[in-house]
Amino acid sequence: MLKQIDRDLIELLAKKIAFLREANLKGINVEETSDMSQLLEQMGVPEFVWKNITLNCVAASQSYNQSTLPVKPKRITIIGGSGKMGRFFTLVFQEAGHQVSILEHQDWHKAPELIGKAELVLVCVNIEHTLTVVEKAAPYLTPSTILAEITSFKTTIVPKLLELHSGPVVSLHPMFGPGVTSFLSQNVIVCGGRQLEACQWILDLIERQGGQLTFCSIAEHDRMMAVVQGMRHFAVFGLGVFLAQEKVNLERSLEFASPLYRLQLDMIGRLFATDGSLSLKMMLSLFERRQFIGRLGATYHHLAQLVAEQDKIALEQEFETTRHFFREQVDRAVEETDYIINSLGVLLADGKSEIDQSQKDSNNNNTRQAA
Amino acid sequence: MLKQIDRDLIELLAKKIAFLREANLKGINVEETSDMSQLLEQMGVPEFVWKNITLNCVAASQSYNQSTLPVKPKRITIIGGSGKMGRFFTLVFQEAGHQVSILEHQDWHKAPELIGKAELVLVCVNIEHTLTVVEKAAPYLTPSTILAEITSFKTTIVPKLLELHSGPVVSLHPMFGPGVTSFLSQNVIVCGGRQLEACQWILDLIERQGGQLTFCSIAEHDRMMAVVQGMRHFAVFGLGVFLAQEKVNLERSLEFASPLYRLQLDMIGRLFATDGSLSLKMMLSLFERRQFIGRLGATYHHLAQLVAEQDKIALEQEFETTRHFFREQVDRAVEETDYIINSLGVLLADGKSEIDQSQKDSNNNNTRQAA
Repeated sequence: MLKQIDRDLIELLAKKIAFLREANLKGINVEETSDMSQLLEQMGVPEFVWKNITLNCVAASQSYNQSTLPVKPKRITIIGGSGKMGRFFTLVFQEAGHQVSILEHQDWHKAPELIGKAELVLVCVNIEHTLTVVEKAAPYLTPSTILAEITSFKTTIVPKLLELHSGPVVSLHPMFGPGVTSFLSQNVIVCGGRQLEACQWILDLIERQGGQLTFCSIAEHDRMMAVVQGMRHFAVFGLGVFLAQEKVNLERSLEFASPLYRLQLDMIGRLFATDGSLSLKMMLSLFERRQFIGRLGATYHHLAQLVAEQDKIALEQEFETTRHFFREQVDRAVEETDYIINSLGVLLADGKSEIDQSQKDSNNNNTRQAA
Repeated sequence: MLKQIDRDLIELLAKKIAFLREANLKGINVEETSDMSQLLEQMGVPEFVWKNITLNCVAASQSYNQSTLPVKPKRITIIGGSGKMGRFFTLVFQEAGHQVSILEHQDWHKAPELIGKAELVLVCVNIEHTLTVVEKAAPYLTPSTILAEITSFKTTIVPKLLELHSGPVVSLHPMFGPGVTSFLSQNVIVCGGRQLEACQWILDLIERQGGQLTFCSIAEHDRMMAVVQGMRHFAVFGLGVFLAQEKVNLERSLEFASPLYRLQLDMIGRLFATDGSLSLKMMLSLFERRQFIGRLGATYHHLAQLVAEQDKIALEQEFETTRHFFREQVDRAVEETDYIINSLGVLLADGKSEIDQSQKDSNNNNTRQAA
């Protein structure tokens, strides 16, 4: 019974996605079929379910655009293709119809074949090894081979790449990590390089799969990364250290959580899921970045003093100045956080397992007596 | 054509949700029909679309459970029912079949009727006015009327409520604000009160609509709120002040954003969408909370110094200690952030309007030349 409903649903979804994709390719703007609210109410389907399906189908129609476009298969070798980002790129290129080979550290005897005959060599190894690997690969590169890499520190990498290879070079910085399953709505920075016109097919592929390209200089890249990586990591790191110092009962705090606190705690947990080396690098690399974080620490210190001294007037002043600075961000921020808060609610509705619930009930019974 | 597909889709969704709801009521565990992956691939429907629909239907089947249960309509008066939280509760009670009246400040002449005959009086005014309003309402309350309120500061409120009304009292703290459309997966704290057994129908209603109740003492409430509200607001406030000080180009930074940076920026924007009075209250109220934030500021200051001095060993030590403290949070954190990151991607795929795109293209052209 449910299985048949599911089959029928999938068939209809396929139709809807195909319809949107075609309209998209033809440049037709499909207007929201806005007058479904009456039907939804009548059928007992909550609005949020329908809104989410609409969003998902639009996203699907955009991320799968490439499948309808003809592709000339390229020979691609991914050095470090078995790592997390390597696997992502392998999949993405294969789905687009290209022929992908992987070169791991035990495979260097195949370098003449795998590198010498490749049209694109993409280096996906850990950032510490990027330059060593490129040095090792360089002798096998032909002048027409595209050399590409994806590290997050461009100052040391890009000039060296240009030195080691005389042909096309493209330095990418995908602003996402493992867990993301497609380029859809993800930012990819293109930071310097050479003969970018020869690399255009790579950039096109990213865009066709819904990725957002941004071109910038090394200087702008580093400046922005101080904010996007340095500041964010430090802010989250600091909260984690503080919660550990204060020995806050994290499990119990989730029962008191607002959706945004839960998200905040999730972000901290995610940061500490790694071994820290990348996080510390994001904070410690580059003198400017260390200075930047130093100033952030000073700001927090100053504001915390104002709080401790109960200096309401000074805090109100800070609030007003900042509110003015953020005025153009507010509408988007509220819209996106509303959506995320409701999405999280949907996920949790499914995830509240029996174990969670019984755990919680026993907690409550204890405190119900204590209260 | 699309309209017909949409109609058929909605009909099938209604069937699926009804099926899940019935299984739910009967206590039957509906196993994920896991073997859809082949069909999905065959039909060109991405996995994430199907996964999201499954989640949404489960959520819908849970949040609408109450509609199948018999209800004895109660007379409810919401003081401040036209405010944001007041409107939320009005809707929720009406959907559950109750009879809701609203009392605004111009309506006090109707108090004998609206308060005297109500079975539940819920105070939803701004926290500054809660006690004044309860004092004004108290003379009209009958001994059997339930008095309820929803503020986030229980120390001053709860004892006063118990003093002013001799009948049933329940002090709730819904851990969400405007933007949330149902109780689904939201936390509601129940903090003290009197004759809670008489208030049980309110608590049941919240749970039937998917809300999560947590019972606690005033002391635990205040301790947890220092973390959930005080710490979170201060952390986000500090980042906002810092970004304003540094005059970071926020629009441009979004083009370099990772999903988690975007979320962080959204959280800041959301905080500064308000006038600040509530945020400052969350940080400044209570001596313990000010001390708590003072310590957080000191932690940030200390860590920032370690960064500025490039003291890698001390930072690694802090990282390891905290990683150990968070070890039981990690799996959930990664799972939830993965989901949120992909949800955000879906939303943005739809939202990338032509205006955004042309704005971005012109930015890119400028820097493409500069790069």
